[in-house]
Amino acid sequence: MIQTLSDLKTVRFNEQADGVIILDQTLLPGKEAYLTLTTAEEIWDAIYKLKVRGAPAIGVAAAYGIYVCARRIDTAEKSVFVNEFRKIKEYLAGSRPTAVNLVAALNRMERVLVAHPTLSVPEWKELLYKEAIAIREEDAAACRQIGENCLELLRPGMGILTHCNAGHLAVSEYGTALAPIYLGQERGYGFKVFADETRPLLQGARLTAYELSRAGVDVTLICDNMASIVMRKGWVHAVVVGCDRVAANGDVANKIGTSGVAILARHYKIPFYVLGPTSTIDGSCPDGDSIVIEERNPDEVTEMWYSRRMAPKDVKVYNPAFDITPHELITAIITEKGIFYKNNR
Amino acid sequence: MIQTLSDLKTVRFNEQADGVIILDQTLLPGKEAYLTLTTAEEIWDAIYKLKVRGAPAIGVAAAYGIYVCARRIDTAEKSVFVNEFRKIKEYLAGSRPTAVNLVAALNRMERVLVAHPTLSVPEWKELLYKEAIAIREEDAAACRQIGENCLELLRPGMGILTHCNAGHLAVSEYGTALAPIYLGQERGYGFKVFADETRPLLQGARLTAYELSRAGVDVTLICDNMASIVMRKGWVHAVVVGCDRVAANGDVANKIGTSGVAILARHYKIPFYVLGPTSTIDGSCPDGDSIVIEERNPDEVTEMWYSRRMAPKDVKVYNPAFDITPHELITAIITEKGIFYKNNR
Repeated sequence: MIQTLSDLKTVRFNEQADGVIILDQTLLPGKEAYLTLTTAEEIWDAIYKLKVRGAPAIGVAAAYGIYVCARRIDTAEKSVFVNEFRKIKEYLAGSRPTAVNLVAALNRMERVLVAHPTLSVPEWKELLYKEAIAIREEDAAACRQIGENCLELLRPGMGILTHCNAGHLAVSEYGTALAPIYLGQERGYGFKVFADETRPLLQGARLTAYELSRAGVDVTLICDNMASIVMRKGWVHAVVVGCDRVAANGDVANKIGTSGVAILARHYKIPFYVLGPTSTIDGSCPDGDSIVIEERNPDEVTEMWYSRRMAPKDVKVYNPAFDITPHELITAIITEKGIFYKNNR
Repeated sequence: MIQTLSDLKTVRFNEQADGVIILDQTLLPGKEAYLTLTTAEEIWDAIYKLKVRGAPAIGVAAAYGIYVCARRIDTAEKSVFVNEFRKIKEYLAGSRPTAVNLVAALNRMERVLVAHPTLSVPEWKELLYKEAIAIREEDAAACRQIGENCLELLRPGMGILTHCNAGHLAVSEYGTALAPIYLGQERGYGFKVFADETRPLLQGARLTAYELSRAGVDVTLICDNMASIVMRKGWVHAVVVGCDRVAANGDVANKIGTSGVAILARHYKIPFYVLGPTSTIDGSCPDGDSIVIEERNPDEVTEMWYSRRMAPKDVKVYNPAFDITPHELITAIITEKGIFYKNNR
C-alpha cells in the first residue's frame, strides 16, 4: 500500500471552508502547507504561480474554483448569473494558456448551465457542484487505467526516465506518467526511476523525486542535461511523460524540455511514451504549431530559487514553459482507453 | 575593441605576492574578486571547487601553481627536489580527473627537470618559470587562431548556441568556443548567441552570459532543456563548444550535457563544432569510453546555489561533471592548426 497516495491531497473542496483547498506545491519538498482559495483572484494566482500545477490538477482546481465563485453570485436572475459566471470563466481561463484541461474543465462547467436552461439558479449551483466532483472522479479513474495500460509495456527491473511531474501531485491519485510506476511498485516490479530536475521550476527535483521517494520507489535525481549520459550508459529502458495538450495529429505539448528528451530517446532507441487522459486530446487543434506556448518571467531562470542572482542583471532570457514534441518522435500515446501507436508498429 | 578581454584576468602569476592570482569564478556574476593562492592545498582547492575552471585555464593555473610550490622547495639536493616536485605534481593532478590540460601542463613542467639533468636546482626553478609563461602564451595564441579558423565557417547574423563556458574566463584571452564570437563581434558580424545555463554549476548563466554581455554581444540565456525549442524555431545555425579531452578517435569529453546538445543538433541538421587547442587532444586515449568521468557532490544539484533545499533530503543523485560526445555527432573539430572533419564531408 502506498501511503503517498492517501496523505497528500493536491486539490480538495471543503464545504465549511467555502473554498478550494490546495497543497501549495511551490513550498515542496521543504514544507507541506495547504491553502484555502476563496476568490477568483486567489484561484487565478494559485494556478499562475504553480501553487497548483499539472494539467489535470489545474482542471480540477478550476472546476472547484468556478463552483466556489459561482455559488457566491447572489442573484436569482439567470441572465445576471450567466453573465457573472462567464466573466469569472474568462478570467480563470487566462491564468495559463497551454494546458487544455483548464479551458476544458471550465467549458464543461459552463455546459451545465447551457444544457439545463429551465433550471433555477440554486439548481444550477447544485449541478455545478456535482459536475466538479465528477471531473475529479473521472480523472482519478482514468489515471489508474492509464497506469494499467502502460504497465503492459513495461517489465520488472526496467530503468525509467521521466521529465517534470505528472504524478500524484499533478493529478488525482495515481497521476499519469507516474501511474505505471506506482502500480509497478505495488506489484514489486522494482523499477529504477531517473527524474529530470526540470528547470526552471524544478518540478522533477521538488515534486517527482519527493513523491516517488515517499512511496519507496528507487528514484535518482539528475539535471536535465544528464539524460543523455544516463541513456548512453544503458540505464534507461523507457521514457514516460505526461502531456498538457495533444493535437489532432498526435503532436504533444508538454513541459519545456520534453521534445529534447524525445530526441535523445530516439537517438538511443529507447521507447518514448506519452501518458494522459483523453480529456487532454484537443481535436480542435490540428498540430503542435497551433498550440500557444506560454512564456514566463525571466526571473524564474535568473533568480527565483537562488540565494543570489545567478545571471548578469538585465541579461536577455527566453523562458518558454512548454515545448512541442512532434508525433514522429512518440512511440505511443497511452490513455485510459488504450495504447495508440503512430509510427513504430 | 573588447574591454572584456583586457580587464578580467582569469589566471596570473605575481612575483611580489609569491602566488598564483585567480579570479574567483564561483562568485561571478555578482562579485569580481581575486584570490592569491600560495600553497599546494590552496591551488588544489581552487581547481576542485571551480574557482578556476575551463580546461586551458586549469592547465595554466596548475603550471603557475607547481612553479610557485617548487620555488619554495628549500634544498640544493636535486633528488630531494625532484621527489618533492613529484609529490606536489601527483597531488595537484588529483584535483580534477577529466581535463587533459591539467595533467598535460604538469607533465610538461616535469619534463623541464628531466630534459635538463645537468642543471642546478636554482636553474631548474628559472626554467620552470619560463615554461609556465610559455604554456600561457601558447594557449593565448592558439585560442586566437582557433577563433580565426572557426570564423571561416560562420556567416554574419547567424544564431549560435553554446554550452557551458569556453570563453575568456575559461582560457587565456579569446577563449576557445567563444573566440569566433569575439572575433565576429570585432568585425561587426552581429551574431545572436544562445547560452545554455549549464546545470548544475551554471557556468553558462554565470560566466558565458556575463562575459558576452560585457563585450556587447547579443546573448540570450536559456535553460539547458530549452535548446531543443530554440533549434526547432530555426534560431540556431551553428553550435560551438569547447572540450576537456579529445580521444584519438575524435570522441570528445566536455561539460555534462554536451552530448545531448550534439544529438539535438544532429536531429535539427545544425552543424556542431568542437573548438580546442591541440593540447587537448590525448593521443594516448583511444576513445571516449577510456576517459575517466569525474562525479561530483550531490549537493551541487540539490542545494548548492539555492536559498533552500530543492530536493528531498537523502534523495539519490547522479552528478557526472562531463559526458562523452561520440565523433559521429561532431561536424568538425577546430584547433589552432585547422579544421578537422570526420564525417560530414
